[in-house]
Amino acid sequence: MFFKRLKTPGLGHNSYILGCGEGLAVIVDPRRDVDEYLHLARENNLSIIYILETHRQEDFEFGSAVLAQMTGAKIVSGCHELFGRTDIKLKDGEELKVGTTRIVALETPGHTPESVTYAVYLEDAGEKCWGAFTGDALFVGDTGRTDLPDPEKTGENAGILYDSVHVKIAPLGDQTLLYPAHGSGSACGGNISDRDDSTLGIENGTNPVFVKSRSEFADLKVAGKMARPPHFRHMEEVNLLPGRPLPSPGETHILQPREFQKRMKQGLVIDTRSPEAFAAAHIGSAYNVWLEGVPAMASWIANEKTQIFLVVDGSEEMEQAVRSFARIGIDTVEGVLAGGVEKWREQGLPIETLGTTSALEVHDWMQHGHLHVLDVRDEYEWNEKHIPGATHQFVGYLEKNLPQLHKDSKIVVHCSVGHRSGVAVSILKRHGFTRVYNMLGGITAWEAHGLPLSTSDTAEKED
Amino acid sequence: MFFKRLKTPGLGHNSYILGCGEGLAVIVDPRRDVDEYLHLARENNLSIIYILETHRQEDFEFGSAVLAQMTGAKIVSGCHELFGRTDIKLKDGEELKVGTTRIVALETPGHTPESVTYAVYLEDAGEKCWGAFTGDALFVGDTGRTDLPDPEKTGENAGILYDSVHVKIAPLGDQTLLYPAHGSGSACGGNISDRDDSTLGIENGTNPVFVKSRSEFADLKVAGKMARPPHFRHMEEVNLLPGRPLPSPGETHILQPREFQKRMKQGLVIDTRSPEAFAAAHIGSAYNVWLEGVPAMASWIANEKTQIFLVVDGSEEMEQAVRSFARIGIDTVEGVLAGGVEKWREQGLPIETLGTTSALEVHDWMQHGHLHVLDVRDEYEWNEKHIPGATHQFVGYLEKNLPQLHKDSKIVVHCSVGHRSGVAVSILKRHGFTRVYNMLGGITAWEAHGLPLSTSDTAEKED
Amino acid sequence: MFFKRLKTPGLGHNSYILGCGEGLAVIVDPRRDVDEYLHLARENNLSIIYILETHRQEDFEFGSAVLAQMTGAKIVSGCHELFGRTDIKLKDGEELKVGTTRIVALETPGHTPESVTYAVYLEDAGEKCWGAFTGDALFVGDTGRTDLPDPEKTGENAGILYDSVHVKIAPLGDQTLLYPAHGSGSACGGNISDRDDSTLGIENGTNPVFVKSRSEFADLKVAGKMARPPHFRHMEEVNLLPGRPLPSPGETHILQPREFQKRMKQGLVIDTRSPEAFAAAHIGSAYNVWLEGVPAMASWIANEKTQIFLVVDGSEEMEQAVRSFARIGIDTVEGVLAGGVEKWREQGLPIETLGTTSALEVHDWMQHGHLHVLDVRDEYEWNEKHIPGATHQFVGYLEKNLPQLHKDSKIVVHCSVGHRSGVAVSILKRHGFTRVYNMLGGITAWEAHGLPLSTSDTAEKED
Amino acid sequence: MFFKRLKTPGLGHNSYILGCGEGLAVIVDPRRDVDEYLHLARENNLSIIYILETHRQEDFEFGSAVLAQMTGAKIVSGCHELFGRTDIKLKDGEELKVGTTRIVALETPGHTPESVTYAVYLEDAGEKCWGAFTGDALFVGDTGRTDLPDPEKTGENAGILYDSVHVKIAPLGDQTLLYPAHGSGSACGGNISDRDDSTLGIENGTNPVFVKSRSEFADLKVAGKMARPPHFRHMEEVNLLPGRPLPSPGETHILQPREFQKRMKQGLVIDTRSPEAFAAAHIGSAYNVWLEGVPAMASWIANEKTQIFLVVDGSEEMEQAVRSFARIGIDTVEGVLAGGVEKWREQGLPIETLGTTSALEVHDWMQHGHLHVLDVRDEYEWNEKHIPGATHQFVGYLEKNLPQLHKDSKIVVHCSVGHRSGVAVSILKRHGFTRVYNMLGGITAWEAHGLPLSTSDTAEKED
Repeated sequence: MFFKRLKTPGLGHNSYILGCGEGLAVIVDPRRDVDEYLHLARENNLSIIYILETHRQEDFEFGSAVLAQMTGAKIVSGCHELFGRTDIKLKDGEELKVGTTRIVALETPGHTPESVTYAVYLEDAGEKCWGAFTGDALFVGDTGRTDLPDPEKTGENAGILYDSVHVKIAPLGDQTLLYPAHGSGSACGGNISDRDDSTLGIENGTNPVFVKSRSEFADLKVAGKMARPPHFRHMEEVNLLPGRPLPSPGETHILQPREFQKRMKQGLVIDTRSPEAFAAAHIGSAYNVWLEGVPAMASWIANEKTQIFLVVDGSEEMEQAVRSFARIGIDTVEGVLAGGVEKWREQGLPIETLGTTSALEVHDWMQHGHLHVLDVRDEYEWNEKHIPGATHQFVGYLEKNLPQLHKDSKIVVHCSVGHRSGVAVSILKRHGFTRVYNMLGGITAWEAHGLPLSTSDTAEKED
Repeated sequence: MFFKRLKTPGLGHNSYILGCGEGLAVIVDPRRDVDEYLHLARENNLSIIYILETHRQEDFEFGSAVLAQMTGAKIVSGCHELFGRTDIKLKDGEELKVGTTRIVALETPGHTPESVTYAVYLEDAGEKCWGAFTGDALFVGDTGRTDLPDPEKTGENAGILYDSVHVKIAPLGDQTLLYPAHGSGSACGGNISDRDDSTLGIENGTNPVFVKSRSEFADLKVAGKMARPPHFRHMEEVNLLPGRPLPSPGETHILQPREFQKRMKQGLVIDTRSPEAFAAAHIGSAYNVWLEGVPAMASWIANEKTQIFLVVDGSEEMEQAVRSFARIGIDTVEGVLAGGVEKWREQGLPIETLGTTSALEVHDWMQHGHLHVLDVRDEYEWNEKHIPGATHQFVGYLEKNLPQLHKDSKIVVHCSVGHRSGVAVSILKRHGFTRVYNMLGGITAWEAHGLPLSTSDTAEKED
Repeated sequence: MFFKRLKTPGLGHNSYILGCGEGLAVIVDPRRDVDEYLHLARENNLSIIYILETHRQEDFEFGSAVLAQMTGAKIVSGCHELFGRTDIKLKDGEELKVGTTRIVALETPGHTPESVTYAVYLEDAGEKCWGAFTGDALFVGDTGRTDLPDPEKTGENAGILYDSVHVKIAPLGDQTLLYPAHGSGSACGGNISDRDDSTLGIENGTNPVFVKSRSEFADLKVAGKMARPPHFRHMEEVNLLPGRPLPSPGETHILQPREFQKRMKQGLVIDTRSPEAFAAAHIGSAYNVWLEGVPAMASWIANEKTQIFLVVDGSEEMEQAVRSFARIGIDTVEGVLAGGVEKWREQGLPIETLGTTSALEVHDWMQHGHLHVLDVRDEYEWNEKHIPGATHQFVGYLEKNLPQLHKDSKIVVHCSVGHRSGVAVSILKRHGFTRVYNMLGGITAWEAHGLPLSTSDTAEKED
Repeated sequence: MFFKRLKTPGLGHNSYILGCGEGLAVIVDPRRDVDEYLHLARENNLSIIYILETHRQEDFEFGSAVLAQMTGAKIVSGCHELFGRTDIKLKDGEELKVGTTRIVALETPGHTPESVTYAVYLEDAGEKCWGAFTGDALFVGDTGRTDLPDPEKTGENAGILYDSVHVKIAPLGDQTLLYPAHGSGSACGGNISDRDDSTLGIENGTNPVFVKSRSEFADLKVAGKMARPPHFRHMEEVNLLPGRPLPSPGETHILQPREFQKRMKQGLVIDTRSPEAFAAAHIGSAYNVWLEGVPAMASWIANEKTQIFLVVDGSEEMEQAVRSFARIGIDTVEGVLAGGVEKWREQGLPIETLGTTSALEVHDWMQHGHLHVLDVRDEYEWNEKHIPGATHQFVGYLEKNLPQLHKDSKIVVHCSVGHRSGVAVSILKRHGFTRVYNMLGGITAWEAHGLPLSTSDTAEKED
C-alpha cells in the first residue's frame, strides 16, 4: 500500500497520496504545484481517482482543479456551500468506497464552518479506523486557529471546534493515525509540534483540546492572537475558481544588472538571501524576505498584482522563490538579477549596508546609552515573554505603523532568531531610518544568555 | 523532530533514523551501506550518538560497526550473549536517555532468543509510549518466523514470541506507533502487510498473534514453513564481527564481451534481467535472478566465495545488483558484461533461448498432451493452493533435487507471478533440460482466469 | 564563456547554447522541450537574447517560438521564405553582434534551399572564425541528405550542397570548430560519425564532400537512399506555426489493466520495451517500438491524430516515451498500462509470444529446411551487404507491403542488430503471421560469425 | 565515440575520459576523487585501460594510483624520472595503440621538466591529429607558469616552453583540438581564457606564446609573478606515492554548537560562507575562506596536519568543502558546526561582526579622513593597476606580514571583487585589528565607477 505525506516547506502544509487498492489512489489537500503527485502516481502505477478537500484552504492555492483536469479525478468535499464547485459532496457520516478502502466524511467545523475530517478504513486493518485526515481541525499538539471566519467569534468557534474534536474525531479510537493538513511552521496554528507522527491516543494525553476544559480551551484560543497574512483573502477567492497551473521558473526573466536596475523601478525588489548577507550588501530599495519565509511573509509586502524583481543566491533558490510566491497565488515575478548582488557590485552599481548585532552587545548598549529595541514577533509571542524596555510591533504591520522616532535614532530590531527582524530592518531602511541593527539570534539567544525577560504588560505595547 | 524509515528493497528491511532532541539522533538496525544514514544526519544537522540493534540480524549484514567507527556512536543492544560485542547492554526495562527522549529496552524473545523491543517516549508526547521498534517480534499483520534458532522448536518458540507480544509489547497501549525491522517482502515473515503504517491498536484487532489463541498461533507457525536462505548462516557469523565497509560499484570491472566470455568460466554468470528478456536471449551457462530478487534468492546459487560475473540491463542496474549482493555479504562480483546481451550478440557470441507461456496456454496443453508442471514456490504457499496435477519443489532446493525426467520432457515451471520460476527454468536449462517454459503470470494469473486449484495434499509433493 | 551542446537521443539532434559575453546567450536550433535551455541559462546567469535557426527542421518540432515567447528572445534566420515568420532575417554575409561576439550568416543551400550556416567570431579568439553552426550542411564525417525537397533532384541538390561547403564553409579555415545540427543516429544523414568533436581541418581530409569530386559526391548521394519518415511532412507544417509547449507526462493517464484493455481498442497499442521482453510476453495487438527508436520509427505507425496506448518498463521510460512522441509532434498518448505487462498478466489478461533466434541458428535452419529471411533495413544498407537468399523490405513500408506468404510460413526477420526487426515482427504478428522470429544480433552478428554475405543485386529485392 | 571533459571547480583543472574504440577508454590527469570517471565508464560500457599523466601535477592530488588499482588500468607517462613509478613510460614520439586510436607522446618541457603532450589520432579522422592533451604546456589563451621548478629560472624555462610549443605542438596542425589540463581559475596560469573550446589554429593567432617573440615571451613570464600556494610542495611529494582514496564526507563529525565550541580550540575554524554572511556574524577565531576558494586559498592557512573545524551554509556545502580540502591533500576536517552560525547564535554563543563597504564609500572616505587601503591581490594584478594611495600585500603572505598599524586603525581591504579580501579581513580580525572593512566589488567596482587607478610603482608596495 503506497502512502506518503508531502510537506510544503514554508507553509507547514501537509498533503497526502494514499493508495487504496486495485491501483487506485486519492490525493488529500493538494497544493498548486501538482507535479509531485503525478510523479508519485506514475512511479507507483497508481490511477488518481479522487481528490479530497478537508476545507477551503486559505493559506495556499489549491491544486485540486488542475489535478482533476489532468487526471480525470473527481474532487470530493463536504456539503457546505463554502466548498464551491466540487464533484462529490459527502454528507456527515457518508462513505466513499475506493478500491478496497472506505473513506468516511465527518463534519468537524470550528476552524472554518465547512471543515471536514476523512476517516479511513483499510481492508487489512479490520474494523477499526486506520487513520484520519483531519485538515485543520486537529494538528499534532495543537488545533487550527478559530479567528479566521470572524475574529469577534474566536471563542465561540473554539467551542465548536472543541466539540468537533470530542464528538467526531475522538471516538475513532486511540489507535487512529493522525494526518492533519499542517505541521510545524504553519500560519494556521502557532504551537504545532515539529513531530509529524502521532495517533489520537497520543494526542489524548497532551493536546490542549483534550487536556483543557471547553472554556479553558476557548480562552486559550482568544489569547493566542496570530496575525492574518493578507493573501488569505485572495486565496479564499482563488480556491473557489477553476484553478491555475503553476507558472514555470523559465518564465522569469534573467535580467543583467543594468537591465535589472532599469526595470526594478516598475515594481518591488525582494531579496531572498539570508539576513546576514543582506545586511552586508544590498540594493537600496530592496525588501529582505529570507527564502523559507516567502510563503508566510511575502503577502505583507506584495500582492498578486505587484511586479516583483528578485535577488537570490543562485538558480535553485530562484526556482524555490518563484514556486513559493506561486503557492500563495503570486505569479508576477518579472525578473531575477543575473549573478546576484556579486555581479551587481562588480559592475559598480550602488550597494548599501545595515547593522547586525548580538544579544550580549545589545544588553551592553542598553546599559550605556540611548537605544530603541523593537520586537516584531507575533502578539502571542510577545505576550509570553519579551525584553524589558522593548516595544512591540508585528513585522506585518510595521510599514503602516513606523516608529515615531528620528530617522537617525539607533534602533535594534529582533524577533525570535533573526529572520523576521531581517524583514523589519529592510522596511525601516527603506523608510529612511539610518541606524538600524538586526539582533541576530533574537530573543532565543537573549534567553540562552540568561538575560532578563518580562511577561506581557500590554502597557508597553506600541500602537 | 526528524524521523524517517529507510526501506531496503528486496530485503523488506526497515531501518530508522530518529532525532531525539538537542541535535542528537539514533539509528535503528542499520544495513551495511550506511551512506544514507550519514547523509540524512548531515542534511538535518544531527549527530548520530547511538545505534540500536533489536537482534542479531540473520538476513542481511549489519552496518552498526562501520557506522559506529565513522561517527563515534555507541552500539546499543540487549544483554543476551548472542549480541556479541556491543557498547551498551540494556537490561529488560532499562532506559536510555537521548536528548529529550527516553528509550526503554524490553526483552521480547521468540523470533530469536536475544530479540529486544525499544519503546520510545518523547517529551512532547507525554507519558504514553509514542512508538516501538519491535525488530522481528511484531510486524504489521504478522510476526517473525520462529523456526530459525531450531526448526524442531518452531512451536515452542512461537509460544515464547506470543508471550513477548502480549506481556511486553501490548501493554504499551493502542496509541503506540509500530516500527518493525521488516515490511512486506521479507524472508523473515511470510504474510507481512504491504502497508507500512500501523499502531498497536490496529494490530490488536487483526494480527494473528492477537486474534488467535496461544496454541492456534503456535500451530500456525509450525504450518507456515519457509525455506531458510543459505546466507543466513554467514550473516549470523559476520554480524558478530567488527563490520566491513561496502565495496564500491567502481571495483566491479567492466568486461568487454570476449573478455567476459574468457573470464566467466572462473565463476558463475548471473543475469539479473527480467525473466522475459532472459528467455528471449541469454548466455548459455547463466542463472537468471531478477534484480529485486537478488537479496532473497542469490544465496541459493552463490556464496561469499563465488566469483560472480553479471549480466545487467544498464549501469544503474549494475550498481543495484552489486549493492544487493553486498547487503547479504557477497562482495565477489568480479565483472559485468559491457553493453549487456545486446553487445554480446552483436559480436556474434552465442546466445540461447527459453520458452515462455501463459496460464491459458498451459491449461490448454494440459488437456491435450503430456506435460510436467512444476511449482517452485515456498512450501506454505503450495499448501495454501496449487494447480492440480502439478508437482512441487521449492526453487532454492531445485538444483539439488532435479526432476527425474528425460532431458527433452516438456516442463512448465511456475511460481506466484513468474520471477522465481525464471530462476528455476535457468537452473533446469543449465542441467540440460531443453524444453522448459516459464509460465508468466504464475498461479496468480491461473487463479484470475478461474482455472481449477487444489489445496495441499502432501501426497502430490515431490521429494 | 559558457557553451554547451545538447543532444537529443533518438533524433541524433544537436542544439547549442552559446554565451556571448555581457551575460547574453543565443540558442541554436532548439527542440520543442525547452526546459533544459532555460535551466542552463538560469544556472549560468545568462539572458537568452536570440534563437538561431539554421533551417526549417523537418525531423523534429522546433522550440523556437515557445522559447521566444517565454524569454522575449528574437528568432534569427536567413532570408529565404521557407523560414516563415522569424524576427530577424540575415542576408548572406550579414552579421549579428551579441555581447562581445559576432555571428555571421552564410547561405549554404543543398540539404534544403533555405539552409544557413552561422560562423562565430569571439573577441578573445581573434580574427579567425572560432566555430560554425552548420545545420545539416556539414556533419562530422557526412553531409545532410539532399533528397528531401524533391527526390528527383537528389543529385542536383547534392551539387548545390557541394558548392555551399566548398565556397562558403571551407574558407572559414581549418581551425574552425564544427557544430552541426545532427550527430550519429539522425534520419538526416546515414553515415554521420559517432564522434562529436571535429574541426573543418579534420573534415577536410576525411569527409566525402571534401574527399570526392563534385560528381562523385552527387552519385554518392543518389545511391544512398534513405526512407523519409512520414512525420517530416507534419513537422514542415508545424515548424511554420507559432509553436506549442510540450505536454506534460502528467497528462498521460495511468490506466489499470482492465481499463487499459477496454480503452486500447480506440487507438493503437505501442510497446516500447526491448524486442526480447516483447517477444517473451506481449499484448496481442501491440506494435513493438523500442524506446530509443520512437523518434525515428513511430511515425511509420502513428501520426499526430492516433490515440496511443503505451506499454513501458517503468515510469521513467514512460516519460521518455511521451517526450519522444512530442518531439516529433505527436501529443496523443492517451494512457499507459499501470504496472506494465507484469501486472497485466497477473490479472489473467491474455498474453502472446513471438520467436527469437540467433544468426548461427538461422544459418543452420537455412541449410535444413524451408525458411523466409526478411531484411528490413534501409535500402542503402541492403545495397552495401546482405544475407544471400534474403528478401528486402524496409520496415517502414512493411505494413503496406506484407510478404505474399502463407500465414504459417516460417519467417525470420532481421535488421542490423535486432531493433527494427522487432518492429517488423510485431507488424507481421498483427497481420496474422504465426511463425515469425526476430534474429537478434542481426546482420552484425551474422558478419561477426563470418557467415556469407552478398552485395546489392536489386533483382533480389521484394516489391 | 564517448569523450568528456571533467572540470574541477576551484582548481580550474580539466581531466578527460576518451573512448578509444572496442570498448576501451583512457583517462587523462585524473583528480583524487575518481568516482565520476568510474561512473561514466559504467554508463558508457567502457573498460578503462590506461591512465595518462601529462606531468606530475603540483596543484592537486592525483587519482591515478587509486584508479589503476580499482580498474586494473596501467598508468602511462613520459620517461622523465620526475614521473615516479608509472607502468608505461613513453619516449618522445613513441606511440600507444588503444582500440582503434593512436596516442603519441611528445616531450614538451618548460612548465616542468617532465611535461608531456599526448597527440591523439582517430581512425575516422584520418592522418591528421585530432586533438592534443597538452597538460600545462599550452592552455587556451595562455601557457603554464614557468617559475615552479626554480623561480630564478623562470625566464630560462619560459624559453624552453616556447620551444616545446613551437617545435612539438604547433606542427600538429591548425585543425587540432586543444585539451589542456587547466582552464580559467587555475593557480597554474594567470590569464587562461574562460572559454573551454579551442584549436591550435585559433591559438596560433591569439595566444602570447604564438603572438610574441621568444624573448618577449620570456619577459612576460618573468613579469607575471604569481604566488605559489604552500600545498604545491606537499602535492609534489604525495603524487609520487601509491595514492590514497578520498575520505568520505560521512567521516566528518556533525558537532552540536557547544561540542564544536569545546573542540574547535584543538585546531582552526574555517568558515566557508560568503564574505557578506561572515561579516554580519561569525565565530571570533574563524578564518573566512569562501567555498570555491578552498582549493586555491586554504593551504595558505592550513596544511595536511591541521585539525579543521568547518562552518558552512548547509550539508551540500559541507560535502563540497570536505572534497575541496581532500583534492589538495588535506584530510583533516574533524568536524562541522551543526546548523551553522544560526544554531550557534540561537544558543547564545558569542558572535562577532566585521565591516563591509563599497568602492564609492571608500572613495568618499579617502577624501575626508585617515584610512589605510590594503590591496591583497597577486603581485601581477597589482602591477597591472591599483588604487592610488593603497598598499599591497598578497593575501597569502598577510598573516606573516601584518600591517604595522595601530590595532584600532581604520583599514579597508580589497581584492578584485571581494573574496580574497574576505580572507584578509578575517586574518586581520584574528590579530586584533578592530576596524577592518571588506570593500565588496573590489577594484572591479572601483574601475566600473570610473574612479582613478595607477599602474605599478613598486615604491608603494609594503614589505
